[in-house]
Amino acid sequence: MNNLSAPPSLAPLFTDILAAAARIAPHAHTTPVLRSRAIDALAGCELHFKCENLQRGGAFKFRGACNAVFSLAEDEVARGIVTQSSGNHGGAIALAASLRGGRATVVAPHNTPKIKLAAIRAYGAEIVACEPDQASRDAMTAQVLAQTGGVLVHPFNDPRVIAGQGTATLELLGSAPDLDAVIAPVSGGGLLSGTAIAAHGLNPAIEVFGAEPEGARDAHDSLRAGQRITGRKADTICDGLRAELGTLTFPILSEHLRDILLVDDAQVVAAMRLIWERMKLVVEPSGAVPLAAVLAHRERFAGRRVGLVVSGGNVDLDLVADLFASKPV
Amino acid sequence: MNNLSAPPSLAPLFTDILAAAARIAPHAHTTPVLRSRAIDALAGCELHFKCENLQRGGAFKFRGACNAVFSLAEDEVARGIVTQSSGNHGGAIALAASLRGGRATVVAPHNTPKIKLAAIRAYGAEIVACEPDQASRDAMTAQVLAQTGGVLVHPFNDPRVIAGQGTATLELLGSAPDLDAVIAPVSGGGLLSGTAIAAHGLNPAIEVFGAEPEGARDAHDSLRAGQRITGRKADTICDGLRAELGTLTFPILSEHLRDILLVDDAQVVAAMRLIWERMKLVVEPSGAVPLAAVLAHRERFAGRRVGLVVSGGNVDLDLVADLFASKPV
Repeated sequence: MNNLSAPPSLAPLFTDILAAAARIAPHAHTTPVLRSRAIDALAGCELHFKCENLQRGGAFKFRGACNAVFSLAEDEVARGIVTQSSGNHGGAIALAASLRGGRATVVAPHNTPKIKLAAIRAYGAEIVACEPDQASRDAMTAQVLAQTGGVLVHPFNDPRVIAGQGTATLELLGSAPDLDAVIAPVSGGGLLSGTAIAAHGLNPAIEVFGAEPEGARDAHDSLRAGQRITGRKADTICDGLRAELGTLTFPILSEHLRDILLVDDAQVVAAMRLIWERMKLVVEPSGAVPLAAVLAHRERFAGRRVGLVVSGGNVDLDLVADLFASKPV
Repeated sequence: MNNLSAPPSLAPLFTDILAAAARIAPHAHTTPVLRSRAIDALAGCELHFKCENLQRGGAFKFRGACNAVFSLAEDEVARGIVTQSSGNHGGAIALAASLRGGRATVVAPHNTPKIKLAAIRAYGAEIVACEPDQASRDAMTAQVLAQTGGVLVHPFNDPRVIAGQGTATLELLGSAPDLDAVIAPVSGGGLLSGTAIAAHGLNPAIEVFGAEPEGARDAHDSLRAGQRITGRKADTICDGLRAELGTLTFPILSEHLRDILLVDDAQVVAAMRLIWERMKLVVEPSGAVPLAAVLAHRERFAGRRVGLVVSGGNVDLDLVADLFASKPV
């Protein structure tokens, strides 16, 4: 369905991120920026962790969802909000819709983890199951939109969502204004696009990096190729980073990024364990990817001040020990 | 050894806690006070979590150790600092001594977890092994003191340590001034004594509660009996809460406490899992005891504003899944 992947409008401006910050302030947490002397010593640089695992819903996703939902006109809310998501965005839309007093429908693959479906239902949204491939998701989403007359809030290819995600970096640079670089994980590119626009709006000299698993390196390869590479099958433990860049996020990242840094899954697990053990924070694999990138590319950051967006902490505790056991640090 | 259990001086005053806050400010973290709407809904009250798991060394213990070590005269530091500890206090003293440029010796039972011994050594302290009972600890500590001429900093029966631990509650009430009650875990009683003196110094109307595992209920029973009950064998997963009240802490708690609330280990594991899952924080069993107490004694706190001291986050990740698996929520 072309209408789902086409950009609904132009890239958001820095002023859109400022407006988003004001819009979501009554609803979203200002998350802490934490530090660790022990990890600084290991990394050889000064790290500032923006803890979006402590955001409502356990991930940055609530920022973008909240900004999009509260940007809608009353009559749009009344039509119902529709999205597609196998993860944190679905729960975030469900929560934002309930705060706005609206109704949401989430199109989710039938193999979505039960814990995530439970979160979506707990916020009062309806779930419509589809097959776990992009074509089925798009087809089912189009069908729901046609049947309900609802409005779509795409997980990342939406300027309101991107602007909302950028508010995390406004806060990060408010706490640590002298950063030399900022690193965020990249999947569809919504978080990283917002991060880049926010950082460069405050300071054009900051270097913005993406961090991406080797097994889902479409963003890395797309930026080098100068065009979006799509249709690959992702193979990584980072369940939040398996999407492909969108038509809206690709040009934003092409304009702003210094580079995308690749890490393998063993490096992600090691970084995740470091954050759990040394910082006492529960982070999901995707959330540890920026630290993994710093540790894997130490020479690029030696002695510098680096901000890391810890994207989320939604992980099944029953699976964690197996993960740590299978990939010892 | 009487000299190890006798009070080295009177209970600290509220002004000693204010002085401690200024003394440790260059070294200790001001830890965040975090909230969770989901846990509030489960508990039926408004909870404010003071996150000492995010303190240096992963526990509140650094506050008391830092205040004691930086209270010493230069010639005392030169003699060397001696303590006895099977846990977080040993690491905290080692860290504080290294920051002061001094030398520390930690008397530790030979069955102390390797991870805690490694932390003590990493901060440059010497470890002297003893048998895992209080008589052996006291005898070996006295021997080390006699041989080295060092100065003792007891883990809890020391007014400088108690004053340091109280600084966490100064910060908690600075963030949340309208609390009706504060709950901290109780073991030797240093943290809870400091908590009580700080809370009542700021607001005499605040109710201060201890929270204690059923399997180590000496503080609960001592306060009811009107005298210290000693010599029992503790049986609880809360490895930080197995000590007995000291001669200095018992009268402080007798004066200040509203009550001590008991919880069983299954309730502790359930509360711990809630904090990990809903708040994305790594807490050790001892650190989850105050939340377990709220959930087990819901009627006492219904609709009230309650501060909880999350005491620490030092837990072996390899053991966690087993813990959660054996005690499902």
